[in-house]
Amino acid sequence: MKALVFQGPGQTSWQDVPDPDLKDAADAVIRVDAVTICGTDLHIIKGDVPEVTPGTVLGHEAVGEVVEVGSEVRTVRPGDRVLVSCIAACGRCVFCRENRYGQCRGGGGWVLGHLIDGTQAEYVRVPFADLSVHPLPGAVTSEDAVLLADIFPTGYEVGVLNGRVRPGDTVVVVGAGPIGLATIATAQLYSPGRIIAVDLAESRLQAARDMGADATVGADEGPEALVEDLTEGLGADVVVEAVGVPEAFEQCTRMVRPGGHVANVGVHGRPAALHLEELWIKDVTITTGLVDTHSTPMLLRMMAAGRLPAASAMVTHRFELGQMEEAYDVFARATDTGALKVVLGGPRHDEVSVPA
Amino acid sequence: MKALVFQGPGQTSWQDVPDPDLKDAADAVIRVDAVTICGTDLHIIKGDVPEVTPGTVLGHEAVGEVVEVGSEVRTVRPGDRVLVSCIAACGRCVFCRENRYGQCRGGGGWVLGHLIDGTQAEYVRVPFADLSVHPLPGAVTSEDAVLLADIFPTGYEVGVLNGRVRPGDTVVVVGAGPIGLATIATAQLYSPGRIIAVDLAESRLQAARDMGADATVGADEGPEALVEDLTEGLGADVVVEAVGVPEAFEQCTRMVRPGGHVANVGVHGRPAALHLEELWIKDVTITTGLVDTHSTPMLLRMMAAGRLPAASAMVTHRFELGQMEEAYDVFARATDTGALKVVLGGPRHDEVSVPA
Repeated sequence: MKALVFQGPGQTSWQDVPDPDLKDAADAVIRVDAVTICGTDLHIIKGDVPEVTPGTVLGHEAVGEVVEVGSEVRTVRPGDRVLVSCIAACGRCVFCRENRYGQCRGGGGWVLGHLIDGTQAEYVRVPFADLSVHPLPGAVTSEDAVLLADIFPTGYEVGVLNGRVRPGDTVVVVGAGPIGLATIATAQLYSPGRIIAVDLAESRLQAARDMGADATVGADEGPEALVEDLTEGLGADVVVEAVGVPEAFEQCTRMVRPGGHVANVGVHGRPAALHLEELWIKDVTITTGLVDTHSTPMLLRMMAAGRLPAASAMVTHRFELGQMEEAYDVFARATDTGALKVVLGGPRHDEVSVPA
Repeated sequence: MKALVFQGPGQTSWQDVPDPDLKDAADAVIRVDAVTICGTDLHIIKGDVPEVTPGTVLGHEAVGEVVEVGSEVRTVRPGDRVLVSCIAACGRCVFCRENRYGQCRGGGGWVLGHLIDGTQAEYVRVPFADLSVHPLPGAVTSEDAVLLADIFPTGYEVGVLNGRVRPGDTVVVVGAGPIGLATIATAQLYSPGRIIAVDLAESRLQAARDMGADATVGADEGPEALVEDLTEGLGADVVVEAVGVPEAFEQCTRMVRPGGHVANVGVHGRPAALHLEELWIKDVTITTGLVDTHSTPMLLRMMAAGRLPAASAMVTHRFELGQMEEAYDVFARATDTGALKVVLGGPRHDEVSVPA
């Protein structure tokens, strides 16, 4: 089959590799119909995630069809259309037993396209299939579904739930990339009073408004002052960091009200300054987290019911699976191309995802 | 009357000042029978708390007798023996309505010995008396009670409650000064699996064991390794920072397990490094906070019922009220004198606090 293989920092190739086989009785093999590229994949290619070894197939998000399952798999069978979650879960370890699948110690967690071959390929082997793939409701298109493999549960669990958004809250989302947009979309499930999106790019702020943000402001245009004005000087109830740089995190801690929450979702490569000399007295809660995807079944149901903005609204570019290298190029040059999310798929993906 | 007056950085004097009067219909005037000195008072004298102006009477903890109340005060009257809380509360503002009295915007919060004259005096005016003083159960000695003005609710609310201690948890308390000891004492209300105290001074570690810590370790003797050993490599469920220096905070973030809580209680004067490059993926919750003293009535009841270790166990030195300057000297030289808490009181204090 063809797959996108990491060849070491700065190098990838779309090349022939052996088809994956079942290696364990809990495995499934999935034929990939739709797949996307994550900002994390770019981090890997840069060399920021050193545990990814050359020769690994990248990708941790997909929609496809089950072609083969191991003898212990009970919840899906060949022919089923499924979502491949970015998180696999053994279901047995101390962390899986508290729904923290992202921290799985039994061989799951974020493994696809990281510690084992991933989804940017024609086929993918998924470990612990019962807890790692989700049967898809027919009403959810492949394009909507593939964005529920990672970014929607990440925005919801690590942003909205960790940030404890409540009805009436003022919610600030710093960073209106795909994760920030997914946070804006899912925060609305908790009926906040207003959502304010902060970004440097006007195109992303427009996307934030389309996704339901009530107000937008440039990151360099004094979002602190706007938040102060809008909240009678109190600050925001919830601030979500969806960028992944120290400056953005520090900006978040300046906008939160006493008693409020800062939920970090961004992937960081450097320490930030935590201004405890100001924050020690302020009753602030700061959270970090990797997605667990425990919310994926709920999000799929809500998406099917039309209770969430269509995830596919943030898909800016579409490619055939074989155009993987071109898709990477467009996604990596997002500032020039305006790319938010790119989706790749074969003919079967098109058949499924285009509404009749 | 006599009072301890802040005269500017490095300078205080025990001197004659006018007796306090009622200034507002919600005020009470209290005759001080027992008072203590807080580490925060030393910070003020150093000049670390610049909003304290010369001429202010210091002190924010006391036990005494109500001598006069304003016309709006309904819950205490002259002759009542009361605890003067470190936090006053207007009861009407946005923060008081969510029990965040420490953040009161209506003229309360931490005001005594900070923005208005405090308790290190023969008499003190307390604003918003209904919510700022607590009638004392007869079974609680003045020495036990005065430690419930600040350090017990601080350890409990900002350490134990913010850290969300649960039955069976491994709890690490970094810093075994009075606040750390109060955290150790009150954490036991939630039946943790084990409490590990960390400090540099063996005398404080002994006090921690006396207060109920199950294990103790020197801060420079690898507490990280001990915690790892005791938790099968997971880390502690809850880590409480009760020191107030960046190094201690950073040590706390190295000992917490995925999904765990770091509760900062320490008063900080400098930023700390937040290692988001390691923590972003770790599902960690970090909290900060000023005490609200919403738990003070409960802690008084539990102390009266013998359900908490005697707070007075951490009183190492006792003085007459007129020995204020000597008491400050002993407390400030804690490394030499072994002082944990010093209590000062007049003859009435002695009558009440010495068990028959």
